[in-house]
Amino acid sequence: MKLVLAVNFKVYESAFGIQAVDLAREARLLASRFNIVRIILAVPALSALRVLQDYDDVYLQHVDPIGFGAHTGFTPLEALKIEGVKGSIVNHSEHKITFRDLETIARKAGELGLEILACADTPQEAAAIAHLKPTMIAVEPPELIGTGTPVSRAKPEVITLGVEAVKRTADIPVLAGAGITEAQDAVRAVELGARGVLVASAIMKAKKPQEKLREFAEALATL
Amino acid sequence: MKLVLAVNFKVYESAFGIQAVDLAREARLLASRFNIVRIILAVPALSALRVLQDYDDVYLQHVDPIGFGAHTGFTPLEALKIEGVKGSIVNHSEHKITFRDLETIARKAGELGLEILACADTPQEAAAIAHLKPTMIAVEPPELIGTGTPVSRAKPEVITLGVEAVKRTADIPVLAGAGITEAQDAVRAVELGARGVLVASAIMKAKKPQEKLREFAEALATL
Amino acid sequence: MKLVLAVNFKVYESAFGIQAVDLAREARLLASRFNIVRIILAVPALSALRVLQDYDDVYLQHVDPIGFGAHTGFTPLEALKIEGVKGSIVNHSEHKITFRDLETIARKAGELGLEILACADTPQEAAAIAHLKPTMIAVEPPELIGTGTPVSRAKPEVITLGVEAVKRTADIPVLAGAGITEAQDAVRAVELGARGVLVASAIMKAKKPQEKLREFAEALATL
Amino acid sequence: MKLVLAVNFKVYESAFGIQAVDLAREARLLASRFNIVRIILAVPALSALRVLQDYDDVYLQHVDPIGFGAHTGFTPLEALKIEGVKGSIVNHSEHKITFRDLETIARKAGELGLEILACADTPQEAAAIAHLKPTMIAVEPPELIGTGTPVSRAKPEVITLGVEAVKRTADIPVLAGAGITEAQDAVRAVELGARGVLVASAIMKAKKPQEKLREFAEALATL
Repeated sequence: MKLVLAVNFKVYESAFGIQAVDLAREARLLASRFNIVRIILAVPALSALRVLQDYDDVYLQHVDPIGFGAHTGFTPLEALKIEGVKGSIVNHSEHKITFRDLETIARKAGELGLEILACADTPQEAAAIAHLKPTMIAVEPPELIGTGTPVSRAKPEVITLGVEAVKRTADIPVLAGAGITEAQDAVRAVELGARGVLVASAIMKAKKPQEKLREFAEALATL
Repeated sequence: MKLVLAVNFKVYESAFGIQAVDLAREARLLASRFNIVRIILAVPALSALRVLQDYDDVYLQHVDPIGFGAHTGFTPLEALKIEGVKGSIVNHSEHKITFRDLETIARKAGELGLEILACADTPQEAAAIAHLKPTMIAVEPPELIGTGTPVSRAKPEVITLGVEAVKRTADIPVLAGAGITEAQDAVRAVELGARGVLVASAIMKAKKPQEKLREFAEALATL
Repeated sequence: MKLVLAVNFKVYESAFGIQAVDLAREARLLASRFNIVRIILAVPALSALRVLQDYDDVYLQHVDPIGFGAHTGFTPLEALKIEGVKGSIVNHSEHKITFRDLETIARKAGELGLEILACADTPQEAAAIAHLKPTMIAVEPPELIGTGTPVSRAKPEVITLGVEAVKRTADIPVLAGAGITEAQDAVRAVELGARGVLVASAIMKAKKPQEKLREFAEALATL
Repeated sequence: MKLVLAVNFKVYESAFGIQAVDLAREARLLASRFNIVRIILAVPALSALRVLQDYDDVYLQHVDPIGFGAHTGFTPLEALKIEGVKGSIVNHSEHKITFRDLETIARKAGELGLEILACADTPQEAAAIAHLKPTMIAVEPPELIGTGTPVSRAKPEVITLGVEAVKRTADIPVLAGAGITEAQDAVRAVELGARGVLVASAIMKAKKPQEKLREFAEALATL
């Protein structure tokens, strides 16, 4: 499996309109150049189609445990299939859901051939989620998210324990996230056992998001 | 003000992909032909850009009381501005929010020049919401939604009381919804004092959604 | 109607066990001495029966829009009747509910003869809630709650506007809350048009809660 | 460890007032007679103190992931200590919480010496929760709750798989629940590997709740 560079656009201003397109184009370029790194863009539902015009490895940031029907304002998994979205982040630290909903989503996604990147605050939560066999699990200590203090430096044991805990239950790639600021933080996370990283503000709030994206891709490509 | 035909796509299968595009094209045709009727398409965030390629009077079905930032999987009002969406339904019977959030959304929408169609279960709730001065208020008794029993026949007093209750506080157009099945149900709602209707399954689950949309537009255009 | 001194115990340590009993006893003493002031103790469900052994004007801090039945961990209004609780705070700034739930609760409470003290963040929310005819409405700007900066000094217009806004719809007593620290803040709130106050930390976190309660009761009794 | 007969009072009418007291007294009698069976009464917060006057093995049905403080209408774990409640059900099918909250509650309960009976819909969820080391785990397929069709007859594999799945992670007793109607359903659950049962409507909605409670206790005592 390739190393994963998952970019959570969140809903920063750069996640919409022309800025989102610019990132999509850069991702396409980088993905073709560094084909040992898989770049996933996790985008807002509202700008997903815009990003998809230039890049095809796109996730949403949340999806609901429902099918097509009378659910005003929610997002059914089947809709991702129709619109060409590959999968979704779920249970992110900023958007926690019940385990029941996570279980429903993981099951439906499996049936539909959609991917799920499930987030966990702690190694224990990662171990718990492993029982649902999502495509990937990202471990992100919430107290470090957005701080600029990278988990791979400040709490390396969260990564190593998370990787071990998940492995005991299932062979699921573990990403590391929270506070990842520089490309070397991502490299360090992989050295600690992660199969990649989940990055957000470091890229989305950068002065030059495309350059920052390139730095991360280049650094991971050297591994 | 024009009469309003607001179509809540919900997340029926027809709300996505080519079916959504077909409805958008029909709406464009109808809007130009019957210019005394305003047709609003309230679409899922995920298919909004698709619909916007062919039609410009587009709402979302829900929006969050937040600005740009670290809010994974939510929708800030500012994003609607960037992406060309005119406004949003909020507080729909299937997606209730607190009054606090409704107040925040109404205020921010006003500042940004976005429109808000706020839903109410009852005349009392409509009266309450009127204090926030949304662009429109739709009164929909939840027990009739999706039943095929139109509010304008089964509970006409909900419309008349809703219209009166809102008027006492502010001059805000009131739409009627719930169970609206045939074009004549919409006509009847307007005769009862509504400025239009909020329709969903009658169109979205019709065998031929475009034809059904046309029937509603034509009927309202005769008023 | 008497002036109201409503004490929100919240879930401070002093809201449970012997400290709660001490406050109940002091309230009984004060209520008999200053019978122009109504003292309501709004207590946690878990300590309600303890408080009720010594004092009978007791509210809960939240109640659910449900009846008896299979609702593990929720609180039906009917239960208050059986256990001798007079009513409940609802929609407190720390426990917001949808307007739909508020409407259900207000209606059921009316049918059961229970009282509802509904909270509002703003004069607009107070005006909106007035349509539901709760027993009382408390206006509390959330940004002042727990700050020690009393609404009656920092934002007197919230009280006067709230009182006016409610009066336009229904004759419902309005209490003021948020940051009320000294007895004189309560007096000032009444002078601004409130029928009483909703106080929490000033009493519950006081070194001597009973003394603080007495100061408030004495001050209001002079009005 | 004793076999466990956990009675979820839910908020049936019999969960309050004199009916709750009658059940508490019967439980005391039975607990002393059949001391190989542990009877836990999981009661509403509002009637907990009433039940505690006659019986001391009492749980709540839900508790919040918070400490003492400004949390109007919620229940902190520390409050259980003060009021003499031994623990709480959490994550019941009718009151689902996020895994994050479950993790916080399990950790705080451990620190405070309180017990947690965590509910799971499925063997997978039970396996996941086992990583948090709660005192007990109850597996209850939600589709059988309240149906009168006992899990131990209709879906025995849920019990056996749940017991195995939990054992792989930690030595935590597993209870079975959902549709348990007759005492023999409880016996069958234990024969399948459960350490006891979680029962609700069978007792709480029985014409003679005390007699029903006795039947369950007697049957389990023969094992």
